[in-house]
Amino acid sequence: MAAVYKKILVCIDGSKYSNKALEHACNLAQSMHSKLFLTHVVENTIGLDFLDRAEYLKLLRNYGKSSLRKAEKITNSKNISTKVIQKEGKVVNSILDVVKKENCDLIVVGSHGFGAGLRLLLGSVSHKIVNRAQCPVLIIH
Amino acid sequence: MAAVYKKILVCIDGSKYSNKALEHACNLAQSMHSKLFLTHVVENTIGLDFLDRAEYLKLLRNYGKSSLRKAEKITNSKNISTKVIQKEGKVVNSILDVVKKENCDLIVVGSHGFGAGLRLLLGSVSHKIVNRAQCPVLIIH
Repeated sequence: MAAVYKKILVCIDGSKYSNKALEHACNLAQSMHSKLFLTHVVENTIGLDFLDRAEYLKLLRNYGKSSLRKAEKITNSKNISTKVIQKEGKVVNSILDVVKKENCDLIVVGSHGFGAGLRLLLGSVSHKIVNRAQCPVLIIH
Repeated sequence: MAAVYKKILVCIDGSKYSNKALEHACNLAQSMHSKLFLTHVVENTIGLDFLDRAEYLKLLRNYGKSSLRKAEKITNSKNISTKVIQKEGKVVNSILDVVKKENCDLIVVGSHGFGAGLRLLLGSVSHKIVNRAQCPVLIIH
Protein backbone atom coordinates (compact mmCIF):
# COMPACT_ATOMS: atom_id res chain seq x y z
CA MET A 1 0.00 0.00 0.00
CA ALA A 2 1.41 3.37 -1.03
CA ALA A 3 1.95 5.97 1.66
CA VAL A 4 -1.00 8.34 1.95
CA TYR A 5 1.30 11.26 2.79
CA LYS A 6 4.70 11.75 1.17
CA LYS A 7 5.41 15.30 2.32
CA ILE A 8 4.02 16.61 5.59
CA LEU A 9 4.34 20.25 6.64
CA VAL A 10 4.43 20.73 10.42
CA CYS A 11 3.78 24.23 11.78
CA ILE A 12 6.39 24.91 14.48
CA ASP A 13 5.86 27.78 16.90
CA GLY A 14 7.52 26.46 20.05
CA SER A 15 4.24 26.08 21.94
CA LYS A 16 3.19 22.86 23.68
CA TYR A 17 0.50 22.44 21.00
CA SER A 18 3.11 22.62 18.29
CA ASN A 19 5.17 20.03 20.20
CA LYS A 20 2.17 17.70 20.20
CA ALA A 21 1.63 18.34 16.50
CA LEU A 22 5.27 17.46 15.84
CA GLU A 23 5.06 14.27 17.89
CA HIS A 24 1.97 13.21 15.97
CA ALA A 25 3.56 14.08 12.62
CA CYS A 26 6.60 11.99 13.57
CA ASN A 27 4.35 8.98 14.16
CA LEU A 28 2.72 9.48 10.77
CA ALA A 29 6.08 9.96 9.06
CA GLN A 30 7.50 6.80 10.62
CA SER A 31 4.41 4.83 9.65
CA MET A 32 4.33 6.15 6.07
CA HIS A 33 8.00 6.98 5.46
CA SER A 34 7.04 10.59 4.79
CA LYS A 35 9.36 13.58 4.70
CA LEU A 36 8.65 16.31 7.26
CA PHE A 37 8.87 20.03 6.48
CA LEU A 38 9.33 21.79 9.83
CA THR A 39 8.15 25.33 9.19
CA HIS A 40 8.31 28.40 11.40
CA VAL A 41 7.09 31.82 10.34
CA VAL A 42 8.26 35.08 11.89
CA GLU A 43 5.11 37.21 11.80
CA ASN A 44 6.47 40.59 10.72
CA THR A 45 3.28 42.39 9.81
CA ILE A 46 2.08 43.41 13.25
CA GLY A 47 2.67 46.96 14.38
CA LEU A 48 3.81 46.89 17.99
CA ASP A 49 4.59 49.92 20.10
CA PHE A 50 5.79 48.32 23.29
CA LEU A 51 9.05 47.09 21.84
CA ASP A 52 11.42 48.43 19.29
CA ARG A 53 10.38 46.77 16.05
CA ALA A 54 13.83 45.58 15.01
CA GLU A 55 14.47 44.24 18.50
CA TYR A 56 11.10 42.49 18.50
CA LEU A 57 11.74 40.80 15.14
CA LYS A 58 15.17 39.69 16.31
CA LEU A 59 13.58 38.08 19.37
CA LEU A 60 11.00 36.29 17.22
CA ARG A 61 13.67 35.08 14.76
CA ASN A 62 15.82 33.67 17.53
CA TYR A 63 12.88 32.05 19.24
CA GLY A 64 11.84 30.49 15.94
CA LYS A 65 15.34 29.24 15.19
CA SER A 66 15.59 27.69 18.62
CA SER A 67 12.16 26.04 18.24
CA LEU A 68 13.16 24.66 14.85
CA ARG A 69 16.46 23.34 16.20
CA LYS A 70 14.65 21.49 18.99
CA ALA A 71 12.14 20.07 16.51
CA GLU A 72 14.87 18.94 14.11
CA LYS A 73 16.73 17.25 16.96
CA ILE A 74 13.62 15.16 17.60
CA THR A 75 13.11 14.17 13.95
CA ASN A 76 16.83 13.36 13.59
CA SER A 77 16.70 11.11 16.63
CA LYS A 78 13.87 9.21 14.92
CA ASN A 79 15.70 9.05 11.55
CA ILE A 80 12.92 10.96 9.80
CA SER A 81 13.80 12.73 6.57
CA THR A 82 13.44 16.44 7.42
CA LYS A 83 13.67 19.87 5.86
CA VAL A 84 13.74 22.94 8.12
CA ILE A 85 12.23 26.16 6.81
CA GLN A 86 12.05 29.58 8.45
CA LYS A 87 10.01 32.24 6.69
CA GLU A 88 9.12 35.83 7.46
CA GLY A 89 5.79 37.45 6.65
CA LYS A 90 2.14 36.68 7.32
CA VAL A 91 1.92 33.30 9.08
CA VAL A 92 -0.86 31.68 7.06
CA ASN A 93 0.27 33.05 3.68
CA SER A 94 3.82 31.89 4.33
CA ILE A 95 2.76 28.40 5.37
CA LEU A 96 0.58 28.03 2.29
CA ASP A 97 3.48 29.26 0.12
CA VAL A 98 5.67 26.46 1.51
CA VAL A 99 2.91 23.88 0.96
CA LYS A 100 2.67 24.97 -2.67
CA LYS A 101 6.40 25.22 -3.33
CA GLU A 102 7.26 21.90 -1.67
CA ASN A 103 4.12 20.18 -2.93
CA CYS A 104 3.13 19.00 0.57
CA ASP A 105 0.12 16.70 0.83
CA LEU A 106 -0.73 17.34 4.50
CA ILE A 107 -0.47 20.21 6.99
CA VAL A 108 -0.23 19.27 10.68
CA VAL A 109 -0.93 22.09 13.12
CA GLY A 110 -1.65 22.40 16.84
CA SER A 111 -5.14 23.54 17.79
CA HIS A 112 -3.67 26.51 19.65
CA GLY A 113 -0.31 28.10 20.02
CA PHE A 114 1.62 31.35 20.01
CA GLY A 115 0.67 32.12 23.62
CA ALA A 116 -2.51 33.91 24.64
CA GLY A 117 -1.31 37.43 23.84
CA LEU A 118 -0.04 36.89 20.34
CA ARG A 119 -2.93 34.55 19.59
CA LEU A 120 -5.38 37.35 20.30
CA LEU A 121 -3.50 39.54 17.84
CA LEU A 122 -3.26 36.89 15.16
CA GLY A 123 -6.61 35.21 15.52
CA SER A 124 -6.64 31.46 15.30
CA VAL A 125 -3.91 30.40 12.88
CA SER A 126 -5.24 26.85 12.67
CA HIS A 127 -8.72 28.05 11.67
CA LYS A 128 -7.28 30.33 9.00
CA ILE A 129 -5.20 27.49 7.62
CA VAL A 130 -8.24 25.22 7.52
CA ASN A 131 -10.20 27.92 5.68
CA ARG A 132 -7.58 28.61 3.06
CA ALA A 133 -5.59 25.41 2.50
CA GLN A 134 -6.18 23.30 -0.59
CA CYS A 135 -4.76 20.14 0.97
CA PRO A 136 -5.87 18.13 4.03
CA VAL A 137 -5.23 19.80 7.39
CA LEU A 138 -4.76 17.75 10.55
CA ILE A 139 -5.48 19.57 13.81
CA ILE A 140 -3.84 18.12 16.93
CA HIS A 141 -5.24 18.81 20.41
CA MET B 1 5.41 0.09 12.73
CA ALA B 2 2.10 0.19 14.58
CA ALA B 3 -0.83 1.89 12.87
CA VAL B 4 -1.24 5.49 13.94
CA TYR B 5 -5.03 5.27 13.68
CA LYS B 6 -6.96 2.18 14.71
CA LYS B 7 -10.48 3.65 14.70
CA ILE B 8 -11.39 6.49 12.37
CA LEU B 9 -14.74 8.29 12.54
CA VAL B 10 -15.88 9.70 9.20
CA CYS B 11 -18.64 12.31 9.22
CA ILE B 12 -21.11 11.40 6.47
CA ASP B 13 -23.62 13.98 5.28
CA GLY B 14 -24.06 13.05 1.62
CA SER B 15 -22.29 16.19 0.35
CA LYS B 16 -19.42 16.10 -2.12
CA TYR B 17 -17.11 17.20 0.69
CA SER B 18 -18.17 14.25 2.79
CA ASN B 19 -17.53 11.99 -0.22
CA LYS B 20 -14.00 13.36 -0.45
CA ALA B 21 -13.53 12.87 3.29
CA LEU B 22 -14.67 9.26 2.94
CA GLU B 23 -12.33 8.63 0.01
CA HIS B 24 -9.42 10.01 2.02
CA ALA B 25 -10.36 8.01 5.12
CA CYS B 26 -10.49 4.86 2.98
CA ASN B 27 -6.91 5.49 1.85
CA LEU B 28 -5.81 5.93 5.46
CA ALA B 29 -7.71 2.83 6.58
CA GLN B 30 -6.20 0.71 3.82
CA SER B 31 -2.74 2.00 4.64
CA MET B 32 -3.11 1.48 8.39
CA HIS B 33 -5.67 -1.35 8.56
CA SER B 34 -7.96 0.92 10.55
CA LYS B 35 -11.65 0.41 11.20
CA LEU B 36 -13.98 3.13 9.87
CA PHE B 37 -16.99 4.43 11.78
CA LEU B 38 -19.30 5.98 9.19
CA THR B 39 -21.45 8.40 11.18
CA HIS B 40 -24.44 10.45 10.12
CA VAL B 41 -26.39 12.69 12.46
CA VAL B 42 -29.97 13.78 11.89
CA GLU B 43 -30.00 17.32 13.27
CA ASN B 44 -33.31 17.42 15.13
CA THR B 45 -32.85 20.57 17.18
CA ILE B 46 -33.64 23.21 14.56
CA GLY B 47 -37.07 24.78 14.60
CA LEU B 48 -38.31 25.04 11.03
CA ASP B 49 -41.60 26.52 9.91
CA PHE B 50 -41.48 25.87 6.22
CA LEU B 51 -42.02 22.14 6.54
CA ASP B 52 -43.98 19.97 8.87
CA ARG B 53 -41.43 18.94 11.51
CA ALA B 54 -42.17 15.21 11.42
CA GLU B 55 -42.07 15.23 7.65
CA TYR B 56 -38.82 17.14 7.69
CA LEU B 57 -37.14 14.71 10.12
CA LYS B 58 -38.32 11.77 8.02
CA LEU B 59 -36.71 13.35 4.97
CA LEU B 60 -33.45 13.87 6.86
CA ARG B 61 -33.44 10.31 8.21
CA ASN B 62 -33.99 8.80 4.80
CA TYR B 63 -31.36 11.03 3.22
CA GLY B 64 -28.90 10.05 5.96
CA LYS B 65 -29.66 6.35 5.58
CA SER B 66 -29.17 6.56 1.84
CA SER B 67 -25.87 8.47 2.29
CA LEU B 68 -24.65 5.86 4.79
CA ARG B 69 -25.63 2.99 2.48
CA LYS B 70 -23.64 4.54 -0.37
CA ALA B 71 -20.66 5.09 1.92
CA GLU B 72 -20.77 1.52 3.24
CA LYS B 73 -20.96 0.16 -0.29
CA ILE B 74 -17.65 1.94 -0.99
CA THR B 75 -15.88 0.67 2.15
CA ASN B 76 -17.19 -2.86 1.52
CA SER B 77 -15.83 -2.81 -2.01
CA LYS B 78 -12.43 -1.95 -0.53
CA ASN B 79 -12.67 -4.63 2.18
CA ILE B 80 -12.39 -2.05 4.96
CA SER B 81 -13.73 -3.00 8.38
CA THR B 82 -16.71 -0.69 8.88
CA LYS B 83 -19.37 0.21 11.41
CA VAL B 84 -22.33 2.34 10.33
CA ILE B 85 -23.90 4.66 12.89
CA GLN B 86 -26.92 6.95 12.55
CA LYS B 87 -27.66 9.29 15.43
CA GLU B 88 -30.26 11.94 16.08
CA GLY B 89 -29.59 15.15 17.99
CA LYS B 90 -27.13 18.00 17.76
CA VAL B 91 -24.58 17.19 15.08
CA VAL B 92 -21.36 18.04 16.92
CA ASN B 93 -22.46 16.63 20.29
CA SER B 94 -23.57 13.40 18.65
CA ILE B 95 -20.32 12.98 16.73
CA LEU B 96 -18.27 13.56 19.86
CA ASP B 97 -20.45 11.04 21.72
CA VAL B 98 -19.62 8.40 19.12
CA VAL B 99 -15.90 9.27 19.28
CA LYS B 100 -15.98 8.76 23.03
CA LYS B 101 -18.09 5.62 23.04
CA GLU B 102 -16.15 3.90 20.25
CA ASN B 103 -12.80 5.25 21.41
CA CYS B 104 -11.94 6.67 17.98
CA ASP B 105 -8.48 8.14 17.51
CA LEU B 106 -9.20 10.36 14.49
CA ILE B 107 -12.16 12.32 13.11
CA VAL B 108 -12.20 12.90 9.33
CA VAL B 109 -14.57 15.60 8.15
CA GLY B 110 -15.12 17.57 4.94
CA SER B 111 -14.34 21.27 5.08
CA HIS B 112 -17.91 22.08 4.07
CA GLY B 113 -21.12 20.23 3.64
CA PHE B 114 -24.83 20.20 4.38
CA GLY B 115 -25.60 22.55 1.47
CA ALA B 116 -25.56 26.32 1.69
CA GLY B 117 -28.95 26.73 3.41
CA LEU B 118 -28.53 24.26 6.20
CA ARG B 119 -24.89 25.28 6.66
CA LEU B 120 -25.99 28.84 7.42
CA LEU B 121 -28.32 27.51 10.08
CA LEU B 122 -25.79 25.17 11.61
CA GLY B 123 -22.67 27.23 11.32
CA SER B 124 -19.53 25.40 10.28
CA VAL B 125 -19.70 21.88 11.65
CA SER B 126 -16.05 21.22 10.93
CA HIS B 127 -14.96 24.31 12.92
CA LYS B 128 -17.12 23.31 15.86
CA ILE B 129 -15.67 19.80 15.81
CA VAL B 130 -12.13 21.21 15.72
CA ASN B 131 -12.94 23.46 18.67
CA ARG B 132 -14.44 20.76 20.84
CA ALA B 133 -12.80 17.46 19.93
CA GLN B 134 -10.17 15.91 22.18
CA CYS B 135 -8.65 13.79 19.43
CA PRO B 136 -6.96 14.77 16.15
CA VAL B 137 -9.29 16.15 13.48
CA LEU B 138 -8.46 15.85 9.79
CA ILE B 139 -10.17 18.37 7.50
CA ILE B 140 -10.46 17.39 3.84
CA HIS B 141 -10.94 20.02 1.10
